[in-house]
Amino acid sequence: MIARALLIATLQAVATVAAAARPPLAVAEIGHFYVGGRTVTIAGVPPRARFRSAGLPPAQIDPNGTFTTGATYVGFVRLAHPRHRYPIVLLPGGGFSGAVYETTPDGRPGWLRDFLDAGHSTYVVDLDRTGRSARARYPEVDPDEPAFRSNAFLWEVLRIGAPGSYAADGGPRAYPGTRFPVASFTAFANGAQPRYPITAEAEAPVYDAVVRAACPCILLAHSASGGGALAAALRWPDQVKAVIAVEPASVPAAPPQPGGPPHLFVWGDYLTPDVTSKDWSEELAAAEAYRAALDRAGTRADLLALPQVGIRGNSHMLMADDNSRAIAALIERWLSRRGL
Amino acid sequence: MIARALLIATLQAVATVAAAARPPLAVAEIGHFYVGGRTVTIAGVPPRARFRSAGLPPAQIDPNGTFTTGATYVGFVRLAHPRHRYPIVLLPGGGFSGAVYETTPDGRPGWLRDFLDAGHSTYVVDLDRTGRSARARYPEVDPDEPAFRSNAFLWEVLRIGAPGSYAADGGPRAYPGTRFPVASFTAFANGAQPRYPITAEAEAPVYDAVVRAACPCILLAHSASGGGALAAALRWPDQVKAVIAVEPASVPAAPPQPGGPPHLFVWGDYLTPDVTSKDWSEELAAAEAYRAALDRAGTRADLLALPQVGIRGNSHMLMADDNSRAIAALIERWLSRRGL
Repeated sequence: MIARALLIATLQAVATVAAAARPPLAVAEIGHFYVGGRTVTIAGVPPRARFRSAGLPPAQIDPNGTFTTGATYVGFVRLAHPRHRYPIVLLPGGGFSGAVYETTPDGRPGWLRDFLDAGHSTYVVDLDRTGRSARARYPEVDPDEPAFRSNAFLWEVLRIGAPGSYAADGGPRAYPGTRFPVASFTAFANGAQPRYPITAEAEAPVYDAVVRAACPCILLAHSASGGGALAAALRWPDQVKAVIAVEPASVPAAPPQPGGPPHLFVWGDYLTPDVTSKDWSEELAAAEAYRAALDRAGTRADLLALPQVGIRGNSHMLMADDNSRAIAALIERWLSRRGL
Repeated sequence: MIARALLIATLQAVATVAAAARPPLAVAEIGHFYVGGRTVTIAGVPPRARFRSAGLPPAQIDPNGTFTTGATYVGFVRLAHPRHRYPIVLLPGGGFSGAVYETTPDGRPGWLRDFLDAGHSTYVVDLDRTGRSARARYPEVDPDEPAFRSNAFLWEVLRIGAPGSYAADGGPRAYPGTRFPVASFTAFANGAQPRYPITAEAEAPVYDAVVRAACPCILLAHSASGGGALAAALRWPDQVKAVIAVEPASVPAAPPQPGGPPHLFVWGDYLTPDVTSKDWSEELAAAEAYRAALDRAGTRADLLALPQVGIRGNSHMLMADDNSRAIAALIERWLSRRGL
């Protein structure tokens, strides 16, 4: 638990900083690389007509051949003068690209900028065929088609409003006191990406490849990437220097071993049991059980449950909420106290 | 035509700069926004089982509902002290996200960095459902499934090697003297994106939205985005201050009107008529005819045909080739001479 006095001091510092313009960043390198990727061969599929681009006639395409697929895009912004030893790797939740960390739906600088301002070089990953990562044909490569999520599904599963509230009379009805920038929900939904099937067997090598390329580092994971990041910390205890698990959707099945890096679990609001069908309380309970297991193993594992420190109204998308910068500052303060 | 003496001076300057490390960039803002986007409603599709994420049981998903689709991702890097009045908007070719401009396949800084170093703020666009832009269900929203392009298709259509050369005995055989970083072809193919059907009617509003959000500006378009950028310059002669059309795949059907901004057309090598099935000479001829029409309309329209100034070996992916920085410097020099 982060102490209330520390919280108040941090929020006061954030308010002071927020009043001033952000000074320019001295950026040494900006770019990307891909990790993973494999070659697949497709054979025996009939040729078909293929659209080319506007103004050009259709062409015949042969869907067969050798394809490169499965690679994961890792963007980076390396500071000329980082003030901390380890970069932060920002891992999005399911169905969102790394763009969720760049800019909030209402156009404020996102956690990417907050952690750059704090002096960390950063990596932002497009996981699970989102964003600039590779996609794959189905059924030849993937067993299932991607799942598109409706506005109502997003609204409710991300705890912007209660189940049924998207289709409320008079338009979507958010939770009272929500910190999500509701007026920018459409801008937010512009960035929603379809979800592709991924198995646990396929997931671990992606995290391994990211760790090999970007670490030693701090992993900051959200929702569906939480389980992968927590598991990566078990496999790479010397390379992963801390894990920030923001509302993790799952936790590793394997029990933690002694000697792991420090962990911080961050949770928002509206996790009460009366929110039933799209509740996250099962995920919270699983994460708390895992946190207790880390503690028993002698690994530091702190809880930042925002309502418990007086911060109410946060949705599942804490990096999009209107107090995103204050939450980043709390995370950064926790890292500083860990010497990171 | 860029004079040979100018070319040599520019290449010498580039060689001098390349020997030194790039100084840090002073970045004021880094982030993105989405333009366009619309709401679609899907009804009457049966529910189906949906994969969630590794470690979680499948869920039932209702594919029906209201979805936000069609938005285009526009990334930006705004310099604290730009040395030029207008930013450059980098528009990728078909089946590539904006990542092609960030970093070359062999890990060198891309045109994004080259133009930032030259003092332009930049925008990079993920066109046509690539990258972080929205995708769409088919057949409910899009009429056709996306087209995945094989390694052999990419190799040959991008003029890395001659038709049939990907499947050559002993492995893919590049054109003699190619400037494409052939050893990094797999890394390059990691970034290939499927192509989605797009009509001319759907294309123009995307360019209009980009112009409204990012201009006044310079448009730099490659291949499939060439036609859209050239047409946008006709519709927005006051907002588009210059067009750099790098191997445009199409040109506007409408004849240019007087008073347009200056244009530069850039072409690589291997455009000889003996390269037949994946030739680009038809596109080159169409672009040259359009350039002549611009000239007749009194609009400056220059040709930079690299082999004509002694630079041989460039593929269709000039921003990926090993002399990408020298080509950016030639473009930047042309802009400087236009007062841009």
